[in-house]
Amino acid sequence: MPRIDGRAPDQMRPVKFTRHCNKYAEGSCLIEVGDTRVICTASIEERVPLFLRNTGSGWISAEYGMLPRACSTRNPRDTRDRSSGRTSEIQRLVGRALRAAVDLKAIGERTIWLDCDVIQADGGTRTASVTGAYVALMDALTHLRKNGQITRLAMYEPMAAVSVGIIGGVPMLDLNYAEDSQAAVDMNVVMTASGKLIEIQGTAEHMPFTRSEMNALLSLAEKGTQELIARLKEMFPEPV
Amino acid sequence: MPRIDGRAPDQMRPVKFTRHCNKYAEGSCLIEVGDTRVICTASIEERVPLFLRNTGSGWISAEYGMLPRACSTRNPRDTRDRSSGRTSEIQRLVGRALRAAVDLKAIGERTIWLDCDVIQADGGTRTASVTGAYVALMDALTHLRKNGQITRLAMYEPMAAVSVGIIGGVPMLDLNYAEDSQAAVDMNVVMTASGKLIEIQGTAEHMPFTRSEMNALLSLAEKGTQELIARLKEMFPEPV
Amino acid sequence: MPRIDGRAPDQMRPVKFTRHCNKYAEGSCLIEVGDTRVICTASIEERVPLFLRNTGSGWISAEYGMLPRACSTRNPRDTRDRSSGRTSEIQRLVGRALRAAVDLKAIGERTIWLDCDVIQADGGTRTASVTGAYVALMDALTHLRKNGQITRLAMYEPMAAVSVGIIGGVPMLDLNYAEDSQAAVDMNVVMTASGKLIEIQGTAEHMPFTRSEMNALLSLAEKGTQELIARLKEMFPEPV
Amino acid sequence: MPRIDGRAPDQMRPVKFTRHCNKYAEGSCLIEVGDTRVICTASIEERVPLFLRNTGSGWISAEYGMLPRACSTRNPRDTRDRSSGRTSEIQRLVGRALRAAVDLKAIGERTIWLDCDVIQADGGTRTASVTGAYVALMDALTHLRKNGQITRLAMYEPMAAVSVGIIGGVPMLDLNYAEDSQAAVDMNVVMTASGKLIEIQGTAEHMPFTRSEMNALLSLAEKGTQELIARLKEMFPEPV
Amino acid sequence: MPRIDGRAPDQMRPVKFTRHCNKYAEGSCLIEVGDTRVICTASIEERVPLFLRNTGSGWISAEYGMLPRACSTRNPRDTRDRSSGRTSEIQRLVGRALRAAVDLKAIGERTIWLDCDVIQADGGTRTASVTGAYVALMDALTHLRKNGQITRLAMYEPMAAVSVGIIGGVPMLDLNYAEDSQAAVDMNVVMTASGKLIEIQGTAEHMPFTRSEMNALLSLAEKGTQELIARLKEMFPEPV
Amino acid sequence: MPRIDGRAPDQMRPVKFTRHCNKYAEGSCLIEVGDTRVICTASIEERVPLFLRNTGSGWISAEYGMLPRACSTRNPRDTRDRSSGRTSEIQRLVGRALRAAVDLKAIGERTIWLDCDVIQADGGTRTASVTGAYVALMDALTHLRKNGQITRLAMYEPMAAVSVGIIGGVPMLDLNYAEDSQAAVDMNVVMTASGKLIEIQGTAEHMPFTRSEMNALLSLAEKGTQELIARLKEMFPEPV
Repeated sequence: MPRIDGRAPDQMRPVKFTRHCNKYAEGSCLIEVGDTRVICTASIEERVPLFLRNTGSGWISAEYGMLPRACSTRNPRDTRDRSSGRTSEIQRLVGRALRAAVDLKAIGERTIWLDCDVIQADGGTRTASVTGAYVALMDALTHLRKNGQITRLAMYEPMAAVSVGIIGGVPMLDLNYAEDSQAAVDMNVVMTASGKLIEIQGTAEHMPFTRSEMNALLSLAEKGTQELIARLKEMFPEPV
Repeated sequence: MPRIDGRAPDQMRPVKFTRHCNKYAEGSCLIEVGDTRVICTASIEERVPLFLRNTGSGWISAEYGMLPRACSTRNPRDTRDRSSGRTSEIQRLVGRALRAAVDLKAIGERTIWLDCDVIQADGGTRTASVTGAYVALMDALTHLRKNGQITRLAMYEPMAAVSVGIIGGVPMLDLNYAEDSQAAVDMNVVMTASGKLIEIQGTAEHMPFTRSEMNALLSLAEKGTQELIARLKEMFPEPV
Repeated sequence: MPRIDGRAPDQMRPVKFTRHCNKYAEGSCLIEVGDTRVICTASIEERVPLFLRNTGSGWISAEYGMLPRACSTRNPRDTRDRSSGRTSEIQRLVGRALRAAVDLKAIGERTIWLDCDVIQADGGTRTASVTGAYVALMDALTHLRKNGQITRLAMYEPMAAVSVGIIGGVPMLDLNYAEDSQAAVDMNVVMTASGKLIEIQGTAEHMPFTRSEMNALLSLAEKGTQELIARLKEMFPEPV
Repeated sequence: MPRIDGRAPDQMRPVKFTRHCNKYAEGSCLIEVGDTRVICTASIEERVPLFLRNTGSGWISAEYGMLPRACSTRNPRDTRDRSSGRTSEIQRLVGRALRAAVDLKAIGERTIWLDCDVIQADGGTRTASVTGAYVALMDALTHLRKNGQITRLAMYEPMAAVSVGIIGGVPMLDLNYAEDSQAAVDMNVVMTASGKLIEIQGTAEHMPFTRSEMNALLSLAEKGTQELIARLKEMFPEPV
Repeated sequence: MPRIDGRAPDQMRPVKFTRHCNKYAEGSCLIEVGDTRVICTASIEERVPLFLRNTGSGWISAEYGMLPRACSTRNPRDTRDRSSGRTSEIQRLVGRALRAAVDLKAIGERTIWLDCDVIQADGGTRTASVTGAYVALMDALTHLRKNGQITRLAMYEPMAAVSVGIIGGVPMLDLNYAEDSQAAVDMNVVMTASGKLIEIQGTAEHMPFTRSEMNALLSLAEKGTQELIARLKEMFPEPV
Repeated sequence: MPRIDGRAPDQMRPVKFTRHCNKYAEGSCLIEVGDTRVICTASIEERVPLFLRNTGSGWISAEYGMLPRACSTRNPRDTRDRSSGRTSEIQRLVGRALRAAVDLKAIGERTIWLDCDVIQADGGTRTASVTGAYVALMDALTHLRKNGQITRLAMYEPMAAVSVGIIGGVPMLDLNYAEDSQAAVDMNVVMTASGKLIEIQGTAEHMPFTRSEMNALLSLAEKGTQELIARLKEMFPEPV
């Protein structure tokens, strides 16, 4: 069974990074994964939330949004507050993932805001947001180091995220929207360059899945994230 | 290293179910897992959300709340709307998990509301909510069948949820709040009687975890959920 | 005409107090009046509202809530903000009543939060909240005195609250929900051990009432509150 | 001890009614009680709330507001939602009082909205609102009868409201703001032409009050409401 | 074609100013333009918004509201937040206009709040608000000078506002509501005593208008504002 | 005095239109005016607001948003509701302008939603939104005609918008952000191909302006809008 767009089950869609897409932000990246497009910006604020004040530690906070016509039908702006369950879930995922990748002590008492705004959605917006936010964050950290505000990039190791799922019994990498709608299992995975897990969220949409199916999905996710991390290492060749 | 409360790493806290704790709800259960206490009610509404109207299918919707003094410090009522990210994440988890366990076609065009309200919190409130909601839901389905509104219980197989985590390098089952605060990895798992996964959410709080650590956590989760499911089978001996 | 549940017109439902029902709160009490159940907690915060800062005086603030399925039909969580008129009215009553019973100067510049959450409602939730909150507050004051933060309990005299009403021309004590729905007059009364009034709220639901009917209701309320106060004096035998 | 403005303890402030103060509303009245000024309008809507649909019964709903500078210090508009406890309490009182005075069956399936907006506040705004709303409501009922939409005015008997209180041990009628601030007991009373009670709300601000003090306050309230009702009967001489 | 109320195209409705209509506000004015009635108050607050702190400059902020039955149909209070686009637009206009007329440096680090509340609306509420707010503001500035808090009135020159429009091809001054509903062009103009423009907002409701039509409208607006300014100069004869 | 970016006073910044920038919307255009970038989409909904139902007329509604880091400092997402005055003002302007340009009767009972989301802001975002929305709307109308849902494009004549202002006494066309911040007068103008006005909004930021200055600004605006309209006519050569 060929995939809707002709890809092999373990094949990602084309991925394109456009850095510095915003002239004000300390870091920014437009990430395109197939027809999914997300603008990620990293903004530095010279203070931390109350619970971190005077601890010497910094903070990373993520927010996620979607333009009203990012999807095939228009999503009214004024209902976004009410249906914000999905939004909250996603921005909490993005924030946790990036915080786990950074030594917060090393960035000093400041907050880095990561804004991920979906311009066009075709599946995988939350994992594209994680990967795009990594690029924007790296540029913002580089900016801080250039200004002498930090001495090292504070990133433990490169990381990226992909979605995987099971359709018609076949595990597949990087689902687009049409595939996502018919997947029996839907999983989002954030992994590091050394193959460790930062976050895994797997959901049985229609039927429970076995541990062996989960392992197959994880192997696909590992392949996808390592391909992305190879691209990230080209962009940021300096070891972190 | 003994655990704070003297348990073995693979040992759950005492679990107590008090069914029919509410005289109005079609199903209800007070679940206590150690000092965590959650009131779960199942309420039947004879209509479905707009997107299911005239499809013949039913719906299950979950909501989660916490009394202001459920935790060690008081959480003001009027800030709950603003900090609702965590709440949204949890109630989406509970709803997805229970929907995956039920044949929605078989319950007819009605909604079953699952309300999980935490009276006292000591870790694991979201997994206790899933397990307690299962009991309330089973009672509500039994109520529907007794009334002749459905012909079978519509549940695929029993299911339960536990939290697991890694503390000081040791994988542990059923973290209480004190343990949860120092866990390096935190994972919530919903599993079925046949050992399949309905939901897995794993987060590296401080450092990424390996796939082999994840497997160890899953095995602990399997042990915990099977113990709970044995209890559920005692309460509902009829095969589903 | 016997009452629905066989009580005499001047007879209260069984009342049960479960103190220390919450392991975190400085004071707590589950009060049950017939099938009405309210969890009351008293939480101490070491600061006061702006208008009391540097006055040496403390403050008592009450909040009231209801679980979605506390009543015979489910009350959606997300409409609670909009229909909050009744909630506001009740929590203002509870706060006023308890503040009137306490020497705020004697508790120092701190706030005691009284949370009254209705787990199950069968009439008289606001008066049960006042009486239950009294118990939680007394335990919190005792806690403060034990810690040396205050020198005396600061309570003027014991107090309790009951509802009374007129049904079919007959004044009755402690209405349950079914009675409340058909009452022509509905009155809530907070009284002290010495028989004085702290608050009286009487409403003609269907037809105005005479001053002589009001006196009959007040006498019933006096009987009910004195019975409750006798119970409170057993729990807190030390004179206040 | 003379009162601040030289009145006797049982003397009301001057009261002025300006009917038809709004050219659009079916009924309207500017009521002035001393320096307290409230615009009351009655608006007819040809439908009823959901719970009354197809019952043949009408409804009366009240709302209460205050201009930002109605008081001695400005009350910001944008904080009014948050501090709306007092507002809710008042508009519930006004609505209940007027509904109790009217035969809702006789007004047909329509809603009469009573808006009470305080232009200037100097104590007694809620009781002035009740009395002013009575006038606006009578004009709206007259309008309905003139149009042949109802056959009789549907009012049981005239009614009015006053505030009473105890200051320095002396019961007093119709407190202005300066008096209200120092009152030990504060009571609002709605009474009918025949001397019956529609609503009584009494609160011990500083110290509990005896039943005999309450009786003295009720007698003052009776005097005040009868004076107002005499004025209302002049305006609406036709017996209701 | 005579106007609905018999006026000439360049004729304003009768305008009445009632100063000191509020006993608490530092400045206040009830302005009536035909049947449009707006209560304007100026309230002094001894602090400025954050962005002006320690700059030596003051601030003027305007808010606009409407009673629920100010219009021919009742506008529910609880929908006002949602439909607040028009409200925002108006209060921004009023604030900008008055700030442009005052030397903010000369009023010191304080804020003057201008509240414009429409009691009855019959067209031109926003321009009546500007003119009425000018009067309230002048009284508040006079109050400050009398108290020695400022040394001069800080107003550059008198100013007033009118609406103009084109109906049936004829430019007209000061539209009432019935005219406004059928106007092809609707324009609001704020002008100074020297004939300069502070604000102009012109909108083609049904068809675009030519620059020559715009000039005709501006000339009408100049006539109307100069008539109002003549009245203002009578009220405040001292040159500013 | 040369302008900050070297332009002549009557010279616009480079303008770039990227049509079909969104694969779902019926019409879409990324408009870039200098560094200002706005994504405009037109979405067709097959129903109209309540007040137009069964009138045969369609509707055009506009909404405006800004990404959090569109500006030089980050604008938190969660404060956008509170500070929405500016947003409301802008989206009302965009909606009015486009509605005035279209024969609403000719588009049938459907709504066209125009979403203007600012990706990067450098002055003139509201006028860029109007011009970009025109392009998206034309594409959506073309889409409707191609589908046989309408028979003609329903646009009266091409239109565009520019900002103009006075800086240092010199009238200038198309202000960027740095210029806008120091402008004494700020004016936004929407004009048609035939040189008529659809909307004019002029504000004296620091000092009132004369009618002759206003005429100079209008002439600049005419030059700018005609240049833009020439570009629009190239894109849509068919006469409307």
